[in-house]
Amino acid sequence: MSYPKHLRKLIAVFKRLPGVGTRTAERHAFQLLHWSPQQRNELAQAISAIEENILHCRECGCLSEKEGCHFCSDQRQSAECICVVASPRDACTIEETGTYRGMYHVLEGLLSPVEGIDVSQLRIDPLLDRIKKWGVKEVILALDATLEGDATALFLKEQLSLFSVKISRIAFGLPMGSAFDFIDGNTLARAFQGRNLLT
Amino acid sequence: MSYPKHLRKLIAVFKRLPGVGTRTAERHAFQLLHWSPQQRNELAQAISAIEENILHCRECGCLSEKEGCHFCSDQRQSAECICVVASPRDACTIEETGTYRGMYHVLEGLLSPVEGIDVSQLRIDPLLDRIKKWGVKEVILALDATLEGDATALFLKEQLSLFSVKISRIAFGLPMGSAFDFIDGNTLARAFQGRNLLT
Repeated sequence: MSYPKHLRKLIAVFKRLPGVGTRTAERHAFQLLHWSPQQRNELAQAISAIEENILHCRECGCLSEKEGCHFCSDQRQSAECICVVASPRDACTIEETGTYRGMYHVLEGLLSPVEGIDVSQLRIDPLLDRIKKWGVKEVILALDATLEGDATALFLKEQLSLFSVKISRIAFGLPMGSAFDFIDGNTLARAFQGRNLLT
Repeated sequence: MSYPKHLRKLIAVFKRLPGVGTRTAERHAFQLLHWSPQQRNELAQAISAIEENILHCRECGCLSEKEGCHFCSDQRQSAECICVVASPRDACTIEETGTYRGMYHVLEGLLSPVEGIDVSQLRIDPLLDRIKKWGVKEVILALDATLEGDATALFLKEQLSLFSVKISRIAFGLPMGSAFDFIDGNTLARAFQGRNLLT
């Protein structure tokens, strides 16, 4: 290896990022060499800053700032609807669409025997507590369309059957802009099952 | 935008990296949230460390460390051969192949009227000085197979015609492992022109 030691170190650390192989890590590192010291400093500081500035809300599990949680306002709590997601990122993604303005609840994962994630590792008890606390009327499960998502949805449905809440799961079907040629059979089958009457 | 402020900042800075769009920057940033404080610290420090630890060798223009330049050893200087490259990275790439062990010379760019890079911005005078200083017998041009590479090669050939040195340019042809179906006509034409007799 003919790169200077400190460049090799930087490349090695970049490779820990998702989807970044040796080539990409090298490109990133060489790009940094072209940046101004100030730009490099900005990146290093932005990384260090998340340490103390980005927290997980104890109530909903979403990412929050020191000043408080964006997802835990009075207005949302009075909506009597809670959207269950696997990760804080999923909540942000849904929020971006602008279609939902109720509460969120982050499970911190999905049931997965393969990865050894069982019920005890998910934030399920806090979910039940919150449903009682806020008098929730509807629980929307916004979980992956995967085996893990299905298993988690099934489990939650059983748990929530004790409460008098509506339970729904977001729809499966064709993604927008998709052409028929590129849709797999499973998706198509779910899209048929979930068909909506046009009136 | 519903991400916390410091996360937005980190995403924005990541997007300055080559080939990193919003989606990838978000994935990187969320990955960092899953890292341990120690791992994040390592990345921030690796970025800061290049500031004072990675230098450009004044002689050859390659990347060097405080301790000295890997590419400027006595052994290389006695090889009487110099390989001209556009960037420090190119020198590292060639070095990795293990086929060449002479001197390198980094031009810091290629002639490009489109990008406004002219002769005065390239390290050409230092090249001529080094050729005299080390009694160089052969100059190998290892430049891109692009218009800019061609222009720079042509210019250097003229400049070097005053010296009694062999001038060569690395070969054009089929990249290894390539199938005929995927080769463009230009490459094929150059591969024919550069054909080698099998004996």
